[in-house]
Amino acid sequence: MNNKLFADRMGITDKSFIREILKVTENPNIISFAGGLPNPAFFPVEQIAEAAAKIFKIDGENALQYSSTEGYLPLRKYIAKRYLKRNGLILDPDQILITNGSQQGLDLIGKTFLNKRDKVVIESPGYLGAIQAFSLYEPIFYPVSLLDDGIDIDMLKKTIEDEQIKLIYTVPTFQNPSGITYSKQKRKDFANIVGKQDVIYVEDNPYYDLRFAGEDLPLIRNFLEDNSILLGSFSKIVSPGLRLGWICTNKEIMEKIIIAKQASDLHSNYLAQRIVYQYLIDNDIDEHLIKIREAYRIRRDLMVSMISEHFPEEIEFTKPEGGMFLWITLPEKISALDLFEHAIKENVAFVPGNPFYVNGGGNNTLRLNFSNSDEEQIEVGIKKLANIITKFFP
Amino acid sequence: MNNKLFADRMGITDKSFIREILKVTENPNIISFAGGLPNPAFFPVEQIAEAAAKIFKIDGENALQYSSTEGYLPLRKYIAKRYLKRNGLILDPDQILITNGSQQGLDLIGKTFLNKRDKVVIESPGYLGAIQAFSLYEPIFYPVSLLDDGIDIDMLKKTIEDEQIKLIYTVPTFQNPSGITYSKQKRKDFANIVGKQDVIYVEDNPYYDLRFAGEDLPLIRNFLEDNSILLGSFSKIVSPGLRLGWICTNKEIMEKIIIAKQASDLHSNYLAQRIVYQYLIDNDIDEHLIKIREAYRIRRDLMVSMISEHFPEEIEFTKPEGGMFLWITLPEKISALDLFEHAIKENVAFVPGNPFYVNGGGNNTLRLNFSNSDEEQIEVGIKKLANIITKFFP
Repeated sequence: MNNKLFADRMGITDKSFIREILKVTENPNIISFAGGLPNPAFFPVEQIAEAAAKIFKIDGENALQYSSTEGYLPLRKYIAKRYLKRNGLILDPDQILITNGSQQGLDLIGKTFLNKRDKVVIESPGYLGAIQAFSLYEPIFYPVSLLDDGIDIDMLKKTIEDEQIKLIYTVPTFQNPSGITYSKQKRKDFANIVGKQDVIYVEDNPYYDLRFAGEDLPLIRNFLEDNSILLGSFSKIVSPGLRLGWICTNKEIMEKIIIAKQASDLHSNYLAQRIVYQYLIDNDIDEHLIKIREAYRIRRDLMVSMISEHFPEEIEFTKPEGGMFLWITLPEKISALDLFEHAIKENVAFVPGNPFYVNGGGNNTLRLNFSNSDEEQIEVGIKKLANIITKFFP
Repeated sequence: MNNKLFADRMGITDKSFIREILKVTENPNIISFAGGLPNPAFFPVEQIAEAAAKIFKIDGENALQYSSTEGYLPLRKYIAKRYLKRNGLILDPDQILITNGSQQGLDLIGKTFLNKRDKVVIESPGYLGAIQAFSLYEPIFYPVSLLDDGIDIDMLKKTIEDEQIKLIYTVPTFQNPSGITYSKQKRKDFANIVGKQDVIYVEDNPYYDLRFAGEDLPLIRNFLEDNSILLGSFSKIVSPGLRLGWICTNKEIMEKIIIAKQASDLHSNYLAQRIVYQYLIDNDIDEHLIKIREAYRIRRDLMVSMISEHFPEEIEFTKPEGGMFLWITLPEKISALDLFEHAIKENVAFVPGNPFYVNGGGNNTLRLNFSNSDEEQIEVGIKKLANIITKFFP
């Protein structure tokens, strides 16, 4: 066919690199630290099955019918109540819209705000799903570096002063890919600076409930309300296959988001919304979260100790207090892509860091997922990786 | 907030008219012929409940995990097989991608093909969901009139000759809103003309299996393969709340659609895909369809006979052989919107036709849904409408 028939936005450079990597790692013989998957051993399968059976029994016809674009009202009320309890946020259910996971939240934000060549700040390294979603609206990305305690505030300030930024996107808690969490002070500083600007701020927050060490921090949303969009998700705390997340914002923005959502797919899977709500009211989600956190803590501790023991000393890595990822920085001369090619031959996989940098770079970085491996896999996999890495050292 | 922060595409004229109408009609005292809802009395609730219970039992953890962007392979194979059996189409499962209903198919097509000011042919009156989905990519619409046997071929020819059309969108079978079906000859003529052009052709086909009179016709896809995209949906034959539809196209287009889908929401609800597939292989969908068709036939027959009996003779209306809608054309001087305002006071609702015309017009037309009312509602509702309409006649 005539390639000119495709929209300009589809001409973006090949974004399927990660897809290809993940396909390779589907081989069951591979120990994969590559994906971003929660551990299915901790999905509440029985409880969800019970919730589903209940819904079919008490309200089957309704649960299978078309529904409202905003999403199931009791579920939105539940989310609002939980924000009040967990984060002290006072929200109206009409400030919440149910999406197909956070990923659709990102797409709807792109659709609602981004004109071609609008300027978007993203962390560096930044979340790949956001890069992909926003890229199709053809913005110009301005990456701002992450330091150990969160985004580089000076660099952010300078970027905002120099460029007319339209939108700022961050994952302040257990960031993907780096595992970095903004300190409380950084959150305040960030809100102070961004709050003075005429800019849309997106706080993507899928991992907040996966903290297994240290203390909960306030959301940036606690310090910054105007023009702020908070994204949440059931993917990491209940199940990702249900594809349910939410957008939380003020009513003026919500009005436009609803139009974008309706045009995109009318509404999110209604049966899934009913099932998740039934699950949430019939079970204690906080008890469930304790189990997940404990399981992930054990895996993170093991991965950190294995790395400390077996990797060459020169290698730096993050030690996140929650979430699902560690971030490795190799000496500058070592290419994570070369490393990947060797590792895959030995049946171990990870994600080379380069695709997380919108303007290139990070060739010596890589992401390790610890949530979706068992302890033996972590022991064997990290040892193998250590052996391969050691060969790259002079 | 500063309205300039919204993307240009959100400045489209208010598309929420239908939303407002549908909100009014949510009042349970209203007899609503307004919505486009299948009749929930014919949802296979028990069978879907059984399918769900089975999935949780045999493969719960997997069914709740992230999955592939393309969708569940056995479900795609099932769809391919059904096209072979029903329509004689030879398709590879890789030519099929699972979407959140047809609506997301429309959005992904817009995303993949439409640059701002690209030229799109749409039927007049045209499907509102497509108008909404495409509008956010800011094309220029070229409406082409519908005649009793389908699109006006001469007008289509002239439009294609005069303008550099990028995409043609049609609903050739039991069209929404008109109920019109293209004749076999028209399908051939259409394919002949469009096949010679360097243009993307979208055949939206959600109602094909809802034929209750006459004989099945070939799809336009049977005559036109190149650059062709066929949309299908489980919404009208199983359940809309599951939000499952599909896109069927060649592999070159599919490659780009997959990128757009991944950026939009990673993948469609995986649990719902597993449930629908289990339902389809454990039950006889064709037996189920016989029940739906019979129920809809009874409702259409009743609505047609009530209209014939009670409406003024000057009023024209379609008598579709399937689908869910009748289309009414009033004398030119009568405004369907005025009629709507009177009708709603008497607790009867329909959709005024104007929003289905992208360039305005159709003020004397309206859409009636017959699938989602029971027989008493149709009798009472049409009589009430007849009384109101009669008052508009001199």
